Amino acid sequence: MSIPTVPLRIAVVLFPALTALDVFGPLNALNLLSIQHSMTLSLLSTDLKPVSIDRTIIDGVYQGMPSWQSPNLTQLVLPTHTFDDAPDFDVIMVPGGSGTRNLNLTKPHVDWLQGRMDDPNLQYMMTVCTGTSLLARTGKIAGKNATTNKAAFNWVKTVEHAEDVNWIAKARWVVDGNLWTSSGVSAGTDMTLGWIEHVYGRNESERIRIQLEWVSLNQTDDPFAEIYGLV
Amino acid sequence: MSIPTVPLRIAVVLFPALTALDVFGPLNALNLLSIQHSMTLSLLSTDLKPVSIDRTIIDGVYQGMPSWQSPNLTQLVLPTHTFDDAPDFDVIMVPGGSGTRNLNLTKPHVDWLQGRMDDPNLQYMMTVCTGTSLLARTGKIAGKNATTNKAAFNWVKTVEHAEDVNWIAKARWVVDGNLWTSSGVSAGTDMTLGWIEHVYGRNESERIRIQLEWVSLNQTDDPFAEIYGLV
Repeated sequence: MSIPTVPLRIAVVLFPALTALDVFGPLNALNLLSIQHSMTLSLLSTDLKPVSIDRTIIDGVYQGMPSWQSPNLTQLVLPTHTFDDAPDFDVIMVPGGSGTRNLNLTKPHVDWLQGRMDDPNLQYMMTVCTGTSLLARTGKIAGKNATTNKAAFNWVKTVEHAEDVNWIAKARWVVDGNLWTSSGVSAGTDMTLGWIEHVYGRNESERIRIQLEWVSLNQTDDPFAEIYGLV
Repeated sequence: MSIPTVPLRIAVVLFPALTALDVFGPLNALNLLSIQHSMTLSLLSTDLKPVSIDRTIIDGVYQGMPSWQSPNLTQLVLPTHTFDDAPDFDVIMVPGGSGTRNLNLTKPHVDWLQGRMDDPNLQYMMTVCTGTSLLARTGKIAGKNATTNKAAFNWVKTVEHAEDVNWIAKARWVVDGNLWTSSGVSAGTDMTLGWIEHVYGRNESERIRIQLEWVSLNQTDDPFAEIYGLV
């Protein structure tokens, strides 16, 4: 397919306790892609405060922090835009992480995604891992095929509107129209490489995979569905 | 082997234009490990300013930034300590990235690493990708076996003191005493899982690998050495 706009405007949604590799595996591939191809890469949050990686902080108090780990040692990434000042995007990616289990904390994210699902500019909506739960909660993927993290698969199926989604247990990632959803953590990078192949061609996805020294699973390869007893 | 101190004090060194996955693949594994095992995880830089991911900024000017990407969209991670106020560490990890090619920018990192290589507290020194070049420049790994990124292999061999290192072209990662060095990008996560197995046992490394839905290469599996014409 052809690239819809130049520069292609890509956004990654951030929330507290996002999973590090869910965000930075796909971004590493896209950062390499963006050296050769015209695109912008934005990071979105409710405000411009640093966002915690793999740990949740709410109102200055850390949740589920191991006693030996100081809050001062939390890993933090900076957003580039807030939801309120976000421009149009062609591609939106939603990572997963334990923060998705906090339904109040992620309500602004679900509300924003709900609006963007109706945006005619949107060419692709992509989710990694439990990021699919945020999208399911919008009610906008009813009737669609989708997958999610395998350890959290049965939890994701309990969120609001999840019963309307056609959940695929065994898949590294699933494509249904412009909706791309991946299995857990590392699967997001395989999906991103699959998306690069789809949009920019196999030579580009292989060039980047080899730069990352990354070993890919294909779209239907999913040993983890069996490990987690889902098939 | 037994775990040398509790909490185990781990530091990751940051510099501008670090490679995203070099840092956040290993950290994702360690963040999961740290929920069950007593350890601290610190991020070190020359100062506490945000550090750029996959892009270099020097004195407010971006280097090698594609014309379509705004400096405002740079991905940034926050350090937890400066080199000057860094406490003792048991484990130090050095990622790679294009920033390692800037010898002036990374001189403070090399100087700090040089001092820490003589620190009796240090149990493990680990490098990912071109991070090995920073360690080679300290002159403290003369005579040691080591590896590095395969695309950058021949460049790394040109840095100061690199001629004294026994470079291993075909290896996912190399262990020589307390020195652990990995091949490019994704190999750092395989090495980290190998280190978790070494210190905490196979059950722990497998538990974390499966949570990450990660497909590992073993220590001697390295298809990329051949792809890059190094063997």
